[in-house]
Amino acid sequence: MPITADQVKQLREITGAGMMECKKALAESDGDVEKAVDALRKSGAAKAEKRSGRTANEGRVDSYIHPGNRVGVLIEVNCETDFVARTPEFEELVRNLAMQAAAAGAEYVRREDVPAERVERERAIYAAQLEGQGKPAAIIGKIVDGKLEKFFSEICLVEQPYIRDDKKTVGDLLQEAAAKTGENLVVRRFSRFRLGAE
Amino acid sequence: MPITADQVKQLREITGAGMMECKKALAESDGDVEKAVDALRKSGAAKAEKRSGRTANEGRVDSYIHPGNRVGVLIEVNCETDFVARTPEFEELVRNLAMQAAAAGAEYVRREDVPAERVERERAIYAAQLEGQGKPAAIIGKIVDGKLEKFFSEICLVEQPYIRDDKKTVGDLLQEAAAKTGENLVVRRFSRFRLGAE
Repeated sequence: MPITADQVKQLREITGAGMMECKKALAESDGDVEKAVDALRKSGAAKAEKRSGRTANEGRVDSYIHPGNRVGVLIEVNCETDFVARTPEFEELVRNLAMQAAAAGAEYVRREDVPAERVERERAIYAAQLEGQGKPAAIIGKIVDGKLEKFFSEICLVEQPYIRDDKKTVGDLLQEAAAKTGENLVVRRFSRFRLGAE
Repeated sequence: MPITADQVKQLREITGAGMMECKKALAESDGDVEKAVDALRKSGAAKAEKRSGRTANEGRVDSYIHPGNRVGVLIEVNCETDFVARTPEFEELVRNLAMQAAAAGAEYVRREDVPAERVERERAIYAAQLEGQGKPAAIIGKIVDGKLEKFFSEICLVEQPYIRDDKKTVGDLLQEAAAKTGENLVVRRFSRFRLGAE
């Protein structure tokens, strides 16, 4: 049974577990999300199990406009309670995320949001670049996967290196803040405008 | 030959003439945009003829966030020169447009941006509401057209009454500013986020 990107996304939101762990769990549960949640909890990969199922509907809408007003970002970050939404720490987190999206030019929040056709196009380009170099297929597959990881880390906000500390990703930053607040924190959406660009 | 919304949009951008004038000119020119431009110039309906053809690629990206951070807008407004983009008047215009979009809840910049299916759905609803009231078809057509005009004036930014002076529309405001600056001014796009909403 094929695992869909939506299932992986749903499982990640419920459990906070990593992409590969969720894919593996879904493969082993034949696409049954509930079973996969249980499996991830059992294995300890569901980092946020206590928080799972609680919805993040509070939060903040904020913006960051680069000096000169040629690049700007509007962002919505959700948490679970109005209480956390009003803390200076959450406020600062949202501001930093908006600045990150403006500075580092993300196009999507997470890799599940990248259209499948675009991923396939990238994959085909990478494979074509490696063709005729006499490399074994298995090696080519690994190199292509590595290049795709790099692609995601460039265009997906939560996979980008954090601009204020590139030893962690934006996703790590969110997880740290989630641990501190005890709430699920989710970047729901952002828009980035660059003057004169699409 | 059917006139497309894109043609009308293009003609409006080139000439600055009104929606109905552009439609009429395109109908009379059999959809030939150049001929329609000439016709509008000849008739004097092309208000911005000196500016036509010049592109609006400069401008500002700005945002407005409602107090409480539950509603926010990111907007891009284009003008033709960096000089105008840096004037306090243009800055204020863009800020007011962002505030307008946040407060009055526009969904599109102009009526040409509203998907045709959505317009048809509205039209069908209005027609169904009037059915069985024994009104002549011509009258029903006029009432439906009137309701559609109201619909556009609610969801299209440039057709909304201006929040700071409801005797004019946002489009009027833009035209006044265009006349003052001597440049084409175009709201290129905006995003509006409301916390927890689609």
